[in-house]
Amino acid sequence: MRIILCGFGVVGQSLVKLFVSRSEDLYAKYGLKPRVVGVFDSRGSAVDQSGLDLEKLIDTKKKTGTVKNYSKTKNALSGIDMIKNLDAEVLIETTASNYKDAEPGMSHITNAMKHKMHVISVNKGPLALAFPSLMELATYNQVMFKFSGTVGGGTPILDYAKNSLRGERITSFAGILNGTTNYILTNMTNGLSFDEALQDAKKKGYVEADESLDLDGLDAAAKLVILANWIMDMKVTMPDIDCTGIRTVTTSDIKNAAKNKCAVKLIASCNKELKVSPIEVPIDDPLCVNGTLNAIAFTSEHSGTQTIIGRGAGGIETASSILRDLLDIRKEIARI
Amino acid sequence: MRIILCGFGVVGQSLVKLFVSRSEDLYAKYGLKPRVVGVFDSRGSAVDQSGLDLEKLIDTKKKTGTVKNYSKTKNALSGIDMIKNLDAEVLIETTASNYKDAEPGMSHITNAMKHKMHVISVNKGPLALAFPSLMELATYNQVMFKFSGTVGGGTPILDYAKNSLRGERITSFAGILNGTTNYILTNMTNGLSFDEALQDAKKKGYVEADESLDLDGLDAAAKLVILANWIMDMKVTMPDIDCTGIRTVTTSDIKNAAKNKCAVKLIASCNKELKVSPIEVPIDDPLCVNGTLNAIAFTSEHSGTQTIIGRGAGGIETASSILRDLLDIRKEIARI
Repeated sequence: MRIILCGFGVVGQSLVKLFVSRSEDLYAKYGLKPRVVGVFDSRGSAVDQSGLDLEKLIDTKKKTGTVKNYSKTKNALSGIDMIKNLDAEVLIETTASNYKDAEPGMSHITNAMKHKMHVISVNKGPLALAFPSLMELATYNQVMFKFSGTVGGGTPILDYAKNSLRGERITSFAGILNGTTNYILTNMTNGLSFDEALQDAKKKGYVEADESLDLDGLDAAAKLVILANWIMDMKVTMPDIDCTGIRTVTTSDIKNAAKNKCAVKLIASCNKELKVSPIEVPIDDPLCVNGTLNAIAFTSEHSGTQTIIGRGAGGIETASSILRDLLDIRKEIARI
Repeated sequence: MRIILCGFGVVGQSLVKLFVSRSEDLYAKYGLKPRVVGVFDSRGSAVDQSGLDLEKLIDTKKKTGTVKNYSKTKNALSGIDMIKNLDAEVLIETTASNYKDAEPGMSHITNAMKHKMHVISVNKGPLALAFPSLMELATYNQVMFKFSGTVGGGTPILDYAKNSLRGERITSFAGILNGTTNYILTNMTNGLSFDEALQDAKKKGYVEADESLDLDGLDAAAKLVILANWIMDMKVTMPDIDCTGIRTVTTSDIKNAAKNKCAVKLIASCNKELKVSPIEVPIDDPLCVNGTLNAIAFTSEHSGTQTIIGRGAGGIETASSILRDLLDIRKEIARI
């Protein structure tokens, strides 16, 4: 399976390491032999139509900070150049999410689909801004579009709701979908002020370069858009979410919640309305998890409420979700 | 799809009600038209090769306490009689679990398989005593064998671990798999003695007719056997489980746990050894759920630890898991 990999940050590198460490097992168990034919980062690209040497690629990135130095002929091909000039079955999009125009991910995804490539995205931007039209584009071009890693990182939340609960009707759901704000709110519950908790989260590397994505609830809202479209068949995008972040949460809000045996959590919910806002959650509710954990509770018609808890981020975790998507595509292609 | 239904207790009745209430939807969405051709309870049976009138069946059971009065010719066909004399594609086994000889469920399942019927079981007995050989028998006879409802009731725990985590390697797991003992231990944490808590659980109808199944950990051990075979590819049965129940848990154990910010929970775990025993769990661990809730935490190689929480029992919940199995069988048959 030939792959174009867009972006080579923590997730991209973790994925390639996974390809290396599990190559025998992936081939023996699933018939999957991933060949990365092109990859780029912010400084340049590496290309080999017959498949890059993945260990050399990781080594080059580690030693020189960019994949550009992989070969002597320094390339600076963009994702679009690669889609036009390389043969590949799958494009994996891992560049940073943005919720203004979703570029460059949006162009990578739409161009790849037009070139009949299957697409795996862990970039939430394009899905948050254009889920319904991206699904249509995939259907029109008869390609698969997978995005397991966009919600829950390595925790297969989308798959659980869509597949494990098949035959069921989910009537509502609510979740803590952003680990960074949960970490900050947990530390505020433990006595820190908002500013102290934010500084601590920054020191630990938990906060996005654009802190607004976490603090103003945009990351949680993007995940809510994806869930609402995928699980509830709603046709919505970011502007449909009523979104409030955690900047206005005060120490006294936290104390008041504690008096009610509750904790303040940033909850993304779908119950007729789509909403992200800090609310009080009873501390003995399974949803009330602490630290950087994510949690989501699905309420269905017959099976009651079911909660899934796991880490919502992390390079290797998110890479494992890309691998799952890739195995699905492999299986589907083999069937045709 | 023609079905023989063994047992017509809470789960069997809930399933038939589900067939009635969702008949249009099941046909339109999944092409499933369930026809129950035979059913029996402890007092008699009802049979119609062209399909029983399900509303009449529920009504008869409600008014007279048995399906025997469904038609004027009072039948008392056993499950084995039905398997021999009726044409059906699927046998659904819902009689009570026992861990001595697993009868009559064991005979229903093995005979159905030999007659080339697919089997869905929510009866844990046969699986706990003979999982490996039942799987072999199913393979030999080329029939499907499904048992989603045996662990977690309506919460699709087996499916989550097997399918949603595909491509992953689960290295260990631990869970609260019996709601009744969790209810008792929760009430002991809230100040009741063991005997008071047990009486309360009995009053609420949570305790099995044979209380040993709950209190001595047999129910949890049976579920552990099923998980170990299905998820971890171990070939084990009940005698392989090191099993301790909750009868020896004292108020002072509970108090000591509380001092350590823990609660005593009956944990079934698979981490090299297979074990059921009451242990201290930190109260801020996602696994530490209260009341009748079940919870299970899977630790996998790449995606970290993921916890699923839900109700582990209930008629309609368990019926919804049977429906999922039936949809899988329908889908698989359609493919062939």
